[in-house]
Amino acid sequence: MTNSTPVPTPTELTPPDILRCAYMEIVVTDLARSREFYVDILGLVVTEEDENAIYLRSLEEFIHHNLVLRKGPIAAVAAFSYRVRTPEDVDRAEAWYQALGCRTERNRDGFVNGIGDSVRVTDPLGFPYEFFYSVEHVERLAWRYDLYGPGALVRLDHFNQVTPDVPRGRKYLEDLGFRVTEDIQDEDGVTYAAWLRRKDTVHDTALTGGDGPRMHHIAFATHEKHNILYICDKLGALRKSDVIERGPGRHGVSNAFYLYIADPDGHRVEIYTQDYYTGDPDNPVVTWDVHDNQRRDWWGNPVVPSWYTEASLVLDLDGEPQPVIARTDASEMAVTVGADGFSYTRKDDTVEGFKLGNTL
Amino acid sequence: MTNSTPVPTPTELTPPDILRCAYMEIVVTDLARSREFYVDILGLVVTEEDENAIYLRSLEEFIHHNLVLRKGPIAAVAAFSYRVRTPEDVDRAEAWYQALGCRTERNRDGFVNGIGDSVRVTDPLGFPYEFFYSVEHVERLAWRYDLYGPGALVRLDHFNQVTPDVPRGRKYLEDLGFRVTEDIQDEDGVTYAAWLRRKDTVHDTALTGGDGPRMHHIAFATHEKHNILYICDKLGALRKSDVIERGPGRHGVSNAFYLYIADPDGHRVEIYTQDYYTGDPDNPVVTWDVHDNQRRDWWGNPVVPSWYTEASLVLDLDGEPQPVIARTDASEMAVTVGADGFSYTRKDDTVEGFKLGNTL
Amino acid sequence: MTNSTPVPTPTELTPPDILRCAYMEIVVTDLARSREFYVDILGLVVTEEDENAIYLRSLEEFIHHNLVLRKGPIAAVAAFSYRVRTPEDVDRAEAWYQALGCRTERNRDGFVNGIGDSVRVTDPLGFPYEFFYSVEHVERLAWRYDLYGPGALVRLDHFNQVTPDVPRGRKYLEDLGFRVTEDIQDEDGVTYAAWLRRKDTVHDTALTGGDGPRMHHIAFATHEKHNILYICDKLGALRKSDVIERGPGRHGVSNAFYLYIADPDGHRVEIYTQDYYTGDPDNPVVTWDVHDNQRRDWWGNPVVPSWYTEASLVLDLDGEPQPVIARTDASEMAVTVGADGFSYTRKDDTVEGFKLGNTL
Amino acid sequence: MTNSTPVPTPTELTPPDILRCAYMEIVVTDLARSREFYVDILGLVVTEEDENAIYLRSLEEFIHHNLVLRKGPIAAVAAFSYRVRTPEDVDRAEAWYQALGCRTERNRDGFVNGIGDSVRVTDPLGFPYEFFYSVEHVERLAWRYDLYGPGALVRLDHFNQVTPDVPRGRKYLEDLGFRVTEDIQDEDGVTYAAWLRRKDTVHDTALTGGDGPRMHHIAFATHEKHNILYICDKLGALRKSDVIERGPGRHGVSNAFYLYIADPDGHRVEIYTQDYYTGDPDNPVVTWDVHDNQRRDWWGNPVVPSWYTEASLVLDLDGEPQPVIARTDASEMAVTVGADGFSYTRKDDTVEGFKLGNTL
Repeated sequence: MTNSTPVPTPTELTPPDILRCAYMEIVVTDLARSREFYVDILGLVVTEEDENAIYLRSLEEFIHHNLVLRKGPIAAVAAFSYRVRTPEDVDRAEAWYQALGCRTERNRDGFVNGIGDSVRVTDPLGFPYEFFYSVEHVERLAWRYDLYGPGALVRLDHFNQVTPDVPRGRKYLEDLGFRVTEDIQDEDGVTYAAWLRRKDTVHDTALTGGDGPRMHHIAFATHEKHNILYICDKLGALRKSDVIERGPGRHGVSNAFYLYIADPDGHRVEIYTQDYYTGDPDNPVVTWDVHDNQRRDWWGNPVVPSWYTEASLVLDLDGEPQPVIARTDASEMAVTVGADGFSYTRKDDTVEGFKLGNTL
Repeated sequence: MTNSTPVPTPTELTPPDILRCAYMEIVVTDLARSREFYVDILGLVVTEEDENAIYLRSLEEFIHHNLVLRKGPIAAVAAFSYRVRTPEDVDRAEAWYQALGCRTERNRDGFVNGIGDSVRVTDPLGFPYEFFYSVEHVERLAWRYDLYGPGALVRLDHFNQVTPDVPRGRKYLEDLGFRVTEDIQDEDGVTYAAWLRRKDTVHDTALTGGDGPRMHHIAFATHEKHNILYICDKLGALRKSDVIERGPGRHGVSNAFYLYIADPDGHRVEIYTQDYYTGDPDNPVVTWDVHDNQRRDWWGNPVVPSWYTEASLVLDLDGEPQPVIARTDASEMAVTVGADGFSYTRKDDTVEGFKLGNTL
Repeated sequence: MTNSTPVPTPTELTPPDILRCAYMEIVVTDLARSREFYVDILGLVVTEEDENAIYLRSLEEFIHHNLVLRKGPIAAVAAFSYRVRTPEDVDRAEAWYQALGCRTERNRDGFVNGIGDSVRVTDPLGFPYEFFYSVEHVERLAWRYDLYGPGALVRLDHFNQVTPDVPRGRKYLEDLGFRVTEDIQDEDGVTYAAWLRRKDTVHDTALTGGDGPRMHHIAFATHEKHNILYICDKLGALRKSDVIERGPGRHGVSNAFYLYIADPDGHRVEIYTQDYYTGDPDNPVVTWDVHDNQRRDWWGNPVVPSWYTEASLVLDLDGEPQPVIARTDASEMAVTVGADGFSYTRKDDTVEGFKLGNTL
Repeated sequence: MTNSTPVPTPTELTPPDILRCAYMEIVVTDLARSREFYVDILGLVVTEEDENAIYLRSLEEFIHHNLVLRKGPIAAVAAFSYRVRTPEDVDRAEAWYQALGCRTERNRDGFVNGIGDSVRVTDPLGFPYEFFYSVEHVERLAWRYDLYGPGALVRLDHFNQVTPDVPRGRKYLEDLGFRVTEDIQDEDGVTYAAWLRRKDTVHDTALTGGDGPRMHHIAFATHEKHNILYICDKLGALRKSDVIERGPGRHGVSNAFYLYIADPDGHRVEIYTQDYYTGDPDNPVVTWDVHDNQRRDWWGNPVVPSWYTEASLVLDLDGEPQPVIARTDASEMAVTVGADGFSYTRKDDTVEGFKLGNTL
C-alpha cells in the first residue's frame, strides 16, 4: 500500500475551468532528428521554428501549437499544458496550486512562443502542469487537404502520466474538475490506471500506475483507422519499423483504435482514433478487471513489457529532472504478464493464460 | 427584409445549461414502414417498442433513446429534445421560456418513456423544444461489435431547423447559450444559414433559412466514411436508392462527410462523420459566401432543389401542425442555382457557373 | 440501325495473346499544366521526362509507364497500348490487323521511350491500337509507402472507347480474344455499352455507344474507396472542384467505386476501385437494362449529360485526328435522361422518373 | 540438406491449364461449432448443407462453393481443389499425375456436391489435390450489399501448404504451370518459403518450409483493411479474441494486409486484402532475406512461434492422415526468433534483434 499523503482539497477555492489538454513541451536531444520524426514522418505542421525550438500543430488546430520540441541535454517533459476557459481561470489555477502548497511560476508573456499569460506549477504528483487562456490563433488547416498526408494527425487527443499512487492522483484531478471515464482495478480494489476528461472525449489525461512522475505518452488523433495503418506502412518503408512499440490495435479501455511509437529520444507517442462522447455528467464509468486480457487490447494481443516499464522523465520548474518514486502497489505487468501473472479472455475460463507467454 | 419582432433577452435569468441535442420525437404515419427504415435498413437499436411508438438509440448511446417514432395521422416533428446538465436546469428552461412569453408544459414523469421530469415549449420560432435531465440509462453498446452493421450509426449528432429569419433565430439561440461555429452569408449581409453548438462539435442544431418552422433533418454519426458509403450500397441492393436525396459528399460547412436520405414519410435524415473540435470559447467562426460553390459540397456537386424546399412540419404542444411562415429574405436556392443564380469555384472566376445547370 | 460493315474474322490466324491494357499515349496542349494535374495533384510517378513528353506510372507498376503525355497542338489520344504475352505475339498482332485490311506500322525500337518492338495499327473502329511485349523494367514502388499520397493510384485499370456501333466493336474485340463481362441493352436488343477483359478484372477496355472513334476515359485504380474521396477533397482544397465531372459513386456495372475527373485538356480520367474476379472462361455475363437507373450509379445519382456527350479525339498513324462518325442507334442519354427518356429504380415502378430531372 | 528425390518432369505431356484455387474441403469434428465460426462469425454464405457437410462461398463467388466443411473424426484437409480451364484439362491433370507415379481417382460426378467431373490425386508432396472444370453456378452476391457484414469475405484468395523441401515442391509446381512471385531465402541459398500463382495475384498457393505435408492456412479476401479490423473487433465482442493468432498486420511478402485466426479445430484461416497484379510473364520475383524482420510483418511485429509450428494434417485418398515428414533444412523460426536466431530492421544494423525477444 502506498503511504503517500492525500492531496488536500482547497474547498474554499474555485478550481480553474479547464477546457482541454492543449500542448506538451518536450525536451529533445537532437532537434534535427526529432524534426524528421514529427514533421517528415508524422506530418505535424510547423507553426514556427528556430535553432532551439520547433512549434508544431495538428491539422485541425487553431491555437499556435500542440507540441513544442525544445533542444536540451536530457530528454524529458517540460510542461503538460491545459487551456482554460477565461483569463481569470489562470488566476484560479495559480491560487489553487498555491493553496496546495505547490511551487508556481507566473509569466504574463507566456513561457513559450504563441502563448500569453500562463502559470506553471509543479503539481502534487510532481508533474510540470501549465494553464493558459491567451494564445495566438493560426490557420485551422482542416480544409487544406492538399496538406494532408495519408496518416494525417488532426487533433491533439490526450496526455498519459505515470504515477505510483493512482487513487491519490485521481482524487487530486477530480478536485481540479476532471471526471473519470474508465479505470482498471482488481478484486482487491487496487487501481492500476484511470482515464480523466475535461473535453467530451474519454480523456484529456490518464494516470498509469508505475514509477513516477513520468510521462507515459502524448496522443494525436487521426480521422480514420487506415490513417494509423499507413503510419506503420510508412515506417516500414523507411526501415524504421522498430519505432513501433505496440499495436496497431483496438483498445478495450476507450474503445479507440491505437498505435504506440517512440520518438528518437524514446518519448512515446500514441496515434489514436474513435473513442466516444463522454460529456454528460452521469456518463457511465467503465471499470475493467486488470486480469481481463482484452482491457488494453480488445483483440487480446500482448502488451509488450516495455510499454509498462519505459516512460519519460519530467522536469521541475528549474528544468531539473524530477526524482522517480517507485510504485509500491501491485504492478499491472506483474499481475498479468508472464509466469507470475495471469489474464483471461472469458471470465469463466479455467485455463488462465496470456497469448504471448503461451507461445514462447 | 424580414419584419419579425426580435426575441427579447431575459437578462435577469440564467439560461439552462444545455449539454447536447438528445433525441427527436417524430410522428410517422406507418410505424411498420418506419421501423423497416430505421431498424432494418439503418440499424438503429430498439430500446423499447409498442404498437404506438418505437424508441431507438445509436450504438454508443447510454440514455434511453435518440429517436422516438410515434404513430400519428400527419408526419411531423413533436419534439426537438435537449439534455441539460442538472435537474435545476429544467426549471431554468421553464422560467426562460415563460419570460419569453412562450407556452410551456411541464411533465414531472416525462412526455415519453425513459425520460423523467421535462419541460416542453413552443419556442419563439415556433418549434417544439424539450429540456430534460432525468433519463433512464441503458447499455452503451460501443463494444458490442457483434451488433454493428457495416453502416453502424454510433451517435446522434445534430438537428437542423428551417426558419424564415436566421439572424432572429440565431440571436435567440445565442441567448440560450448556443455558440455559432459557421454561417453562410452574402455580401449584403443576408444570412442564409447558421450552425450552433453546445457540445464540442460543429453543431447541436442549425438554422437553415426558408419557410418555417419546419424540421430540415436529424443527423446521426458513423465512425468512418465507408460506413456512409455502405448505406448507399445497401439502399441500392434493396432497390431503394431513390431515398438518397443528396450525397454522399464532403461538406464545406463543418468539413464533415455526409449523406441525406428520406424516411418513408419524407423526414430527412443525414448520416454524418468527422467534423472538428469546437469547444474553445474563441473557436473561430467560419463564414462562407453564399455564392461559393463549395460551401455545401466541397466537391462542387449540386445541391438538389428539393433539399432547399422540402422539410417536415412541426407540431405545437397540442399536437397540431404549426403554420408555415414564408421566408422573405433572399433564398439560397434562388441566388445560387439555375438561370437566375450563380456560384463560383474560384473567387476570381469570370465565368460564373453552376455544375448542374451547366450540364443540362 | 447502324449500317457499318461487320469486321471480318481472320479465322486462319491466331490472334495475339493480350495480357492487359498497359499504357495510353495522349497528346496534351500544355505539358506543364498536364504535369501539375497528373503528378502534383494525382501523384502519378515520373519515370522519365523531357521538354516534349512525360512518362508516368502507377505505384505498383513495374513496366516503364502507364501514361505518356506528349506535347502537341491538338488534345487527342495517340495510342491505346496493350502488352502481349511474348515477342511473337507482336508479329501475330501485325498479321491480324493486316488480314483485317488495317494500316499497321512496326517499330522494332518502339514508338516511345521504354518500350521495344511494337506495332501500331488503326483498328477497324478507327482507334490507334498498339501491341508490344518488350519493355524496360523499373522499380515497382508497391512497398514505398513513403511515396504514397492519400489518394495513391496503384494500377492502370482500363480504357474506355466511344464507338457508334457497339455490337460491331464487340465482335471485333471478341475475335481478338477479349471476353465480355457486362453490357447494357434494351428490350429491343440495342446494345449501349459493353465491357471487355483480358486480365482477371471486369475490363481492360469498354465500348461506350456514341459518336466515335473517341476516347471516353482512362482509369487508374486505388486500393480503397477513401483514396478516391481524398482526391475530391484535395481538388476542393485546390479550388479545382470543377474538374470533378461525375461521382464519386458506386457503379452498377462492374460494382466498382468510381470518380470521373477532367484533365486540363478535357481528357477524362476515372479513378476506380474494387471490381471482381472474372478470370474463369464461364464467368457470368451481367446484362443491365438501359432503363435501370442503378446501372451506371448504383445509388441512382444522375449521370451528367457531358459524361455521355464529351470525349477525346483519337489520332491516326500520321498523327491526324480521326473523323468522328455519328451514332445512329438509340442514345443512352436520350432514352434515360430528361423529358424524353425514363429510368426506373424498381422494375415494376409505375412512376417513371429520373432523380435529377424530378428535382429541377 | 533434404535428401528427397526430385519430382520428375513429364516433358512429353501438357500440364492442365489451372485457373485458380477454387475450394478446400476440410474435415471438422463438430459441424455446429464450425458453422458458428464460418457462418455466424465470418459470414461466409451457405450454398447448401446437410447433417454431414456445409458448402460455403464468398460473396463474389459464382461457383458452388469455396469451402466444404465435412464432419469427421479427425480434423484434417481432404482436398486442395483447383479449377481448370476446360473439361479436357481434367484429363490432362489425371495423365500428368499418373506420369508422376501418383495415385489418382477420377469421379465423373464429382467428389462433392456442386462439382462435376473431377480427379483427385495424392501429389508428390503428399497433398490431396483436386482438379475440375464442371461446376454448378450459383448467384454471385457481389451486388447484394444487404447481405454484407462489416467484415465481408468476398473471394477465396489462396492456399498455403507446409512441406519440408521447398525447392522440390516449387519445381514440381512450376512444372505444373505455377509461377513464383516471391520467396524467402538466406545467404546460403536455403529457401524457407515460396509463393506461386496461376491467377493474377501473388498466389494461389504457397509453400512454407516445415514438417509436412500439412495445411498451413486457407485465405479469404476482403475489399478493404477495415473489414479485417472489424473481424478482430467482433471476436473481441464475442470474447473469442484468443482465436486471433497473429495480426492484423501488413505483410512484407505480398504487400497484403492480413490476419490469422484459428477455427474450432485449429485449422488456420487468413483474412487478406490488397496484394498486387502479377499477370505478366516477366513479373519480377521478389526474394526476401530470411533475416529481414519486415519480411513477414512489414511493421516488424513478431511472428508468434505457433504460426511456424502448428498446421493441419492432410488426408490421403482413403481419408487417412498422411504421415508428417520432418523438415531437415534450417527452420525459419530457429534462424529468426529468440535467443538463437536473429533478424534485422536495417540491413546494416550492428545490433541484431527481434522485437518480441527484446522486450521479454
